[in-house]
Amino acid sequence: MEMIAKIHTDLPTKFGLPRQSGLVEELEGLVVFEPKYREPEALRGIEGFSHLWLIWEFSEAKRDSWSPTVRPPRLGGNKRMGVFATRSPFRPNPIGLSCVKLLGVEKTADQGLALRVGGADLMDGTPILDIKPYLPLADCRPEATGGFAAEKAGYSVKVDFPAELLEKVPESKRTALKALLAQDPRPAYQNDPERVYGFGYAGLEVRFRVSGDRLEVVEIEET
Amino acid sequence: MEMIAKIHTDLPTKFGLPRQSGLVEELEGLVVFEPKYREPEALRGIEGFSHLWLIWEFSEAKRDSWSPTVRPPRLGGNKRMGVFATRSPFRPNPIGLSCVKLLGVEKTADQGLALRVGGADLMDGTPILDIKPYLPLADCRPEATGGFAAEKAGYSVKVDFPAELLEKVPESKRTALKALLAQDPRPAYQNDPERVYGFGYAGLEVRFRVSGDRLEVVEIEET
Repeated sequence: MEMIAKIHTDLPTKFGLPRQSGLVEELEGLVVFEPKYREPEALRGIEGFSHLWLIWEFSEAKRDSWSPTVRPPRLGGNKRMGVFATRSPFRPNPIGLSCVKLLGVEKTADQGLALRVGGADLMDGTPILDIKPYLPLADCRPEATGGFAAEKAGYSVKVDFPAELLEKVPESKRTALKALLAQDPRPAYQNDPERVYGFGYAGLEVRFRVSGDRLEVVEIEET
Repeated sequence: MEMIAKIHTDLPTKFGLPRQSGLVEELEGLVVFEPKYREPEALRGIEGFSHLWLIWEFSEAKRDSWSPTVRPPRLGGNKRMGVFATRSPFRPNPIGLSCVKLLGVEKTADQGLALRVGGADLMDGTPILDIKPYLPLADCRPEATGGFAAEKAGYSVKVDFPAELLEKVPESKRTALKALLAQDPRPAYQNDPERVYGFGYAGLEVRFRVSGDRLEVVEIEET
């Protein structure tokens, strides 16, 4: 397997990432091809599709051994599920699968054509192994039902973002940040209202606290 | 990347395969884990999901070089599209992606737990690299639109299957075979009504002819 491209996103670490693709569609990423695959012809016809699959490598989650069970954060981190019943990064082959919106094909100054996508749940710099069109006929299964993952689908928190802190965020980055925060980036339902969490976003460090269903941004700092 | 399982299906070769997963849901397959991954715990909770993703290897379509364009059979085989705008097997990394229905977890006599699935578009013996639950929230995108692949979605032919030939097919294999044939397995819209095509299915060789929108089965032979 060979890296064919890398995605550039505003999230430098795992903390803060949306928990699945498509949850925060405002979050944009740019897929830049490796020199060998910088061939405009390889993208011919791609703009006919509204959505794409990214198949990528959990490059930061590699382990030498495998465990048959994992503890999904969405179940509170205290319940073990079979690894093949989860989308956990800790699996025999470190392959990730994400459905993103294709926003456009962009001409870059020196990296050839790149794909602008929305809704990726990928860290900045994640290696991409394949890109496939989303085929509604084969991939969209409205009859599908989704075990434990579905139960938590509607969960979100109210975001309290003081105006003076919001001003420190570039305007084009605000909507996505608010949507990210509304997903509650805390790990595994930790519940200490005094604790301050932080994550990197678009060159900033974003710090917040959560009490009940309210998330309050307490600091925005340049990094 | 390591093979974690193999799928057993009734189709020994590429010819005759459905063109995407889910098109022929009656087609059943059995995913049998490699000895190292025969761990019942790894499947805990999987029955809560109606559909799964299989990520697999195009083991019969490996090439040393890559081509930026391919000719999708559904476009008649005479129009070139960018490889990343297609689901062609001939791509930089030989990774396939299929959505299948989970019919059940089965206890085998000597190969541990196996997954019974419906609608796979995979050859018998295809190596599986990963299995993930289908998460409706992230994976089902009813708003997605699908370029050239969508245009051909409704295409099928009427199947004329003489009773004396149908009798040669085990009863449990008939429905799926008829559904497979209705998809018109001919390559690239070849259009010679005299030509007889054949493919292997469940230990049989199935031979047919197509004229206009009618497919006629002309022979069923044990192989």
